[in-house]
Amino acid sequence: MLKVYLSGEIHTDWRDRIVAGAEGLDVRFDGPVTDHAASDDCGAAILGAEESRFWHDRKGAGLNAIRTRRGIEGADVVVVRFGDKYKQWNAAFDAGQAAALGKSLIVLHGPEHQHALKEVDAAALAVAETPEQVVQMLRYVLTGALPETRADA
Amino acid sequence: MLKVYLSGEIHTDWRDRIVAGAEGLDVRFDGPVTDHAASDDCGAAILGAEESRFWHDRKGAGLNAIRTRRGIEGADVVVVRFGDKYKQWNAAFDAGQAAALGKSLIVLHGPEHQHALKEVDAAALAVAETPEQVVQMLRYVLTGALPETRADA
Amino acid sequence: MLKVYLSGEIHTDWRDRIVAGAEGLDVRFDGPVTDHAASDDCGAAILGAEESRFWHDRKGAGLNAIRTRRGIEGADVVVVRFGDKYKQWNAAFDAGQAAALGKSLIVLHGPEHQHALKEVDAAALAVAETPEQVVQMLRYVLTGALPETRADA
Amino acid sequence: MLKVYLSGEIHTDWRDRIVAGAEGLDVRFDGPVTDHAASDDCGAAILGAEESRFWHDRKGAGLNAIRTRRGIEGADVVVVRFGDKYKQWNAAFDAGQAAALGKSLIVLHGPEHQHALKEVDAAALAVAETPEQVVQMLRYVLTGALPETRADA
Amino acid sequence: MLKVYLSGEIHTDWRDRIVAGAEGLDVRFDGPVTDHAASDDCGAAILGAEESRFWHDRKGAGLNAIRTRRGIEGADVVVVRFGDKYKQWNAAFDAGQAAALGKSLIVLHGPEHQHALKEVDAAALAVAETPEQVVQMLRYVLTGALPETRADA
Amino acid sequence: MLKVYLSGEIHTDWRDRIVAGAEGLDVRFDGPVTDHAASDDCGAAILGAEESRFWHDRKGAGLNAIRTRRGIEGADVVVVRFGDKYKQWNAAFDAGQAAALGKSLIVLHGPEHQHALKEVDAAALAVAETPEQVVQMLRYVLTGALPETRADA
Amino acid sequence: MLKVYLSGEIHTDWRDRIVAGAEGLDVRFDGPVTDHAASDDCGAAILGAEESRFWHDRKGAGLNAIRTRRGIEGADVVVVRFGDKYKQWNAAFDAGQAAALGKSLIVLHGPEHQHALKEVDAAALAVAETPEQVVQMLRYVLTGALPETRADA
Amino acid sequence: MLKVYLSGEIHTDWRDRIVAGAEGLDVRFDGPVTDHAASDDCGAAILGAEESRFWHDRKGAGLNAIRTRRGIEGADVVVVRFGDKYKQWNAAFDAGQAAALGKSLIVLHGPEHQHALKEVDAAALAVAETPEQVVQMLRYVLTGALPETRADA
Repeated sequence: MLKVYLSGEIHTDWRDRIVAGAEGLDVRFDGPVTDHAASDDCGAAILGAEESRFWHDRKGAGLNAIRTRRGIEGADVVVVRFGDKYKQWNAAFDAGQAAALGKSLIVLHGPEHQHALKEVDAAALAVAETPEQVVQMLRYVLTGALPETRADA
Repeated sequence: MLKVYLSGEIHTDWRDRIVAGAEGLDVRFDGPVTDHAASDDCGAAILGAEESRFWHDRKGAGLNAIRTRRGIEGADVVVVRFGDKYKQWNAAFDAGQAAALGKSLIVLHGPEHQHALKEVDAAALAVAETPEQVVQMLRYVLTGALPETRADA
Repeated sequence: MLKVYLSGEIHTDWRDRIVAGAEGLDVRFDGPVTDHAASDDCGAAILGAEESRFWHDRKGAGLNAIRTRRGIEGADVVVVRFGDKYKQWNAAFDAGQAAALGKSLIVLHGPEHQHALKEVDAAALAVAETPEQVVQMLRYVLTGALPETRADA
Repeated sequence: MLKVYLSGEIHTDWRDRIVAGAEGLDVRFDGPVTDHAASDDCGAAILGAEESRFWHDRKGAGLNAIRTRRGIEGADVVVVRFGDKYKQWNAAFDAGQAAALGKSLIVLHGPEHQHALKEVDAAALAVAETPEQVVQMLRYVLTGALPETRADA
Repeated sequence: MLKVYLSGEIHTDWRDRIVAGAEGLDVRFDGPVTDHAASDDCGAAILGAEESRFWHDRKGAGLNAIRTRRGIEGADVVVVRFGDKYKQWNAAFDAGQAAALGKSLIVLHGPEHQHALKEVDAAALAVAETPEQVVQMLRYVLTGALPETRADA
Repeated sequence: MLKVYLSGEIHTDWRDRIVAGAEGLDVRFDGPVTDHAASDDCGAAILGAEESRFWHDRKGAGLNAIRTRRGIEGADVVVVRFGDKYKQWNAAFDAGQAAALGKSLIVLHGPEHQHALKEVDAAALAVAETPEQVVQMLRYVLTGALPETRADA
Repeated sequence: MLKVYLSGEIHTDWRDRIVAGAEGLDVRFDGPVTDHAASDDCGAAILGAEESRFWHDRKGAGLNAIRTRRGIEGADVVVVRFGDKYKQWNAAFDAGQAAALGKSLIVLHGPEHQHALKEVDAAALAVAETPEQVVQMLRYVLTGALPETRADA
Repeated sequence: MLKVYLSGEIHTDWRDRIVAGAEGLDVRFDGPVTDHAASDDCGAAILGAEESRFWHDRKGAGLNAIRTRRGIEGADVVVVRFGDKYKQWNAAFDAGQAAALGKSLIVLHGPEHQHALKEVDAAALAVAETPEQVVQMLRYVLTGALPETRADA
């Protein structure tokens, strides 16, 4: 079984598309909590409110790190998606952790981010533009099968 | 499955409350032998009596370390509980091992110990006051669900 | 000697202010090449031009990684600065590597980035707003001396 | 050169007695900041005051951890002293880190703490009662010389 | 279960002979994609064509490395086969990775390559000439049984 | 499940007594090939005869190391038994590997070997004299139960 | 100081050209014994002749591995050169070790070997064709200076 | 500088012969305390007498382990000498630690011990019979020079 952690952008359906596309493959997916509000407030909601936003965020980030750390450390492949909005520093932070831990890193982003992501891309084993390419790579890695419609055809 | 090691204080029912609260979650709990007398005497009871109390304790501590070391090293999350009585240096020692091994550390103690535990708390991803908060965190980490009654409500 | 790697933003004088402020302390500083043009073009300038911007960037990023990896792995403390411009994903990537390698991480940024950097901050041992605070921390870590003008005075 | 980290109790002169006794030996000593007030307030003094005592302590503990982590990770031998007062959980926490990192651990405490420290002692290579014994051990480890006045004479 | 990675030459049936011979043993085999064309073109077929052959190869090699890295890191035993044709530098590269990761290495080659492979052989726990010898070794390692027809008979 | 590797002496029934005694416990045992002749000759029997006894032994030792290395690295607990005959340097060598890998080490030997084994014993978490004591320790570690007939009664 | 290990081909003057070109830079070079005959015969010359060429080679390879292992493990950067002759499997083996140990890998070879070395190149941070390019990279990594005559000019 | 740890037998002058022979080479030697009585009694002499010989030995072994552990972990090469007398299990134990830590291991013993030491020898990079051969190997590893009088001449 291939363990794949899906890190990064949480506002589009890229995770769903990968999970659906990989149906039938021997893959187990994991990823962060993708409910933005829950992810932001989890610390305070469980451990109590903070007056300062900084410590409110710290509590939540600590709690989310329990999930993230376990997910990345347990993964064979870490896919990190960079979208169009927000700073997404946590995505790049996850990518740095994955690289330092020797995980196989796949980066997923549009061509407009190529220059800004060059250090992250250089640490990756593959750079994809679409979730479908990620699925095709997982299929190839597990079965050796290339896609029927080849990108270089 | 999330592997959780419950370390520290053995005189209240905090472990039972966490285990009961986590029913239905994909968690496996582990922890030390909580029978105080057995834990103190195990070395001598199996390997023979010692005249010196120091070596009596050494034999028992060695034997208990087989269980503790395996439990902490195999855990995703280590919860360390500090109670009201005794020195509890073994709890802090376990926390130090967990931190050095890169385990996700949750510390559980009342507010009266905040200053004395500041170094341990700073190494933790979360500091809780009640076993129920630990359960809520495990549930959030595994499912993304926040508690119905929020602490910041 | 304390080995400190200064990662991140390269358009303001924050590195100079830290190095100047730390004069007399037993610290050795390291950091990336801060000449933006050289950093972007180093790969092509030495190994040959690429038609594709993507591979141009890859060559440069590979070469810069030789310096970065050595700097971070050899450091006791990694300071990562986030400025006002650009995506700065490489800064967050460095922070992720530093965290995974168990380095002492200090993050340096203005309050406007607190929410976006909450995961990175939560992995840090200190979050500073000014280079002078970084200097004061290095002095404290090495000598135990607090600043004459205390921030909590 | 033998690198020795002196962790734990900061209210008696045990560190001075070890350093003085080891004069002439090829040893480099390191340890935490032993000015109690500075150690407690360093975070707030540099990074700004906190209303909550919990976060005040967190800031200070993070900053002190930069020094502690480097000291323990760089040591060949970690000596941890437990005194008569306070909870001293940070001492036991340091001992746990040292043990998990495979450092040679020496524990220093009076006989009244033997039972409470049995897990820590069992992880140590030596348990001493006086600073002078620590000096004698360092001398023996470096030179092979036994003390002129033997404890078993 | 013994996890065995079969690395190297892909133009003869040595893998099939080992897998068939090991039927009934508690072994799980893994290895690279052995369809030469798919292995060469996978990167471009999924991620898009490259004008330069060098970057065409890079894309494919990155993708194949996801499979190889996971296979070698997850293995108990890495068998590396050197055949008669081609440079086979990737086989020796895999052997180097396996050795550095502390895997049990078995090298499989004809006597004509003994001198050229002396560094690789010296890092191996066994050097075999036939796939059948590999099967016999796997059987011995798992069951203690020697072959009915002994090579030293 | 507790994974236990039984290393060392192969001429008495100590392994059988431990395995039988541990029936019903969640333990998986592993160990070397205990057929002395097969263990000595396995290399030559599979890979071909050697004129020199030194290289005959080398071939066999390499092959046995595949099994030993996997067994020790996969174990939670390594039990090493020293008997009355032979040099048994391989037993002490296994113990050294187990210690360096951070495995829980139990040493099993009669009192006549105490002085000669003092370095090995000092690296162990327990030193037993009989296989039955090993069984009692495994039971205690897994269930917390002490033996009905206590050694210190 | 940058520690650079120069591995691989020993029949041309590429090492000399790199060492000479790097004069004045803070670099320490290391590499294998480049006297081919001494390297082949060292084992037998010191430890005694072997009738079998296989064991003659084994003795020499073991002895050379003492130097190689230390050189690669102690290096920041490992440069591996592939020339025109021989199998050079030891070069690829060194590259595999360097990659698995997380060393910064630079591969040096002519364009005719690009396809055969694609797996090795993909694990490298830079692929050069001339020793002078290696020197320019070392200078850039250490000083940030680009070559006066740029390859992309 | 090559760091060499000389482990094992302490009753002949083999260490002196190696140290003398290596004069002029860039080698730093380390080893255990070779005063047998001091080595046996160091624990009790410093930490106090024990009634039981077993705990007397334990105290000494713990103290000696501080020196041994540091010596082996800091070494590039570990030479382990097996002599004619005693069980020498500590020598084999040191060899096991060195092997598991990835140190370059050289074993030194007479031909009469070849069979008993086959597992240890198989983990070594070289097996020598005389201290002079060890010196010649150190010289070759550091300088590439073969002995004037070759063993295979």
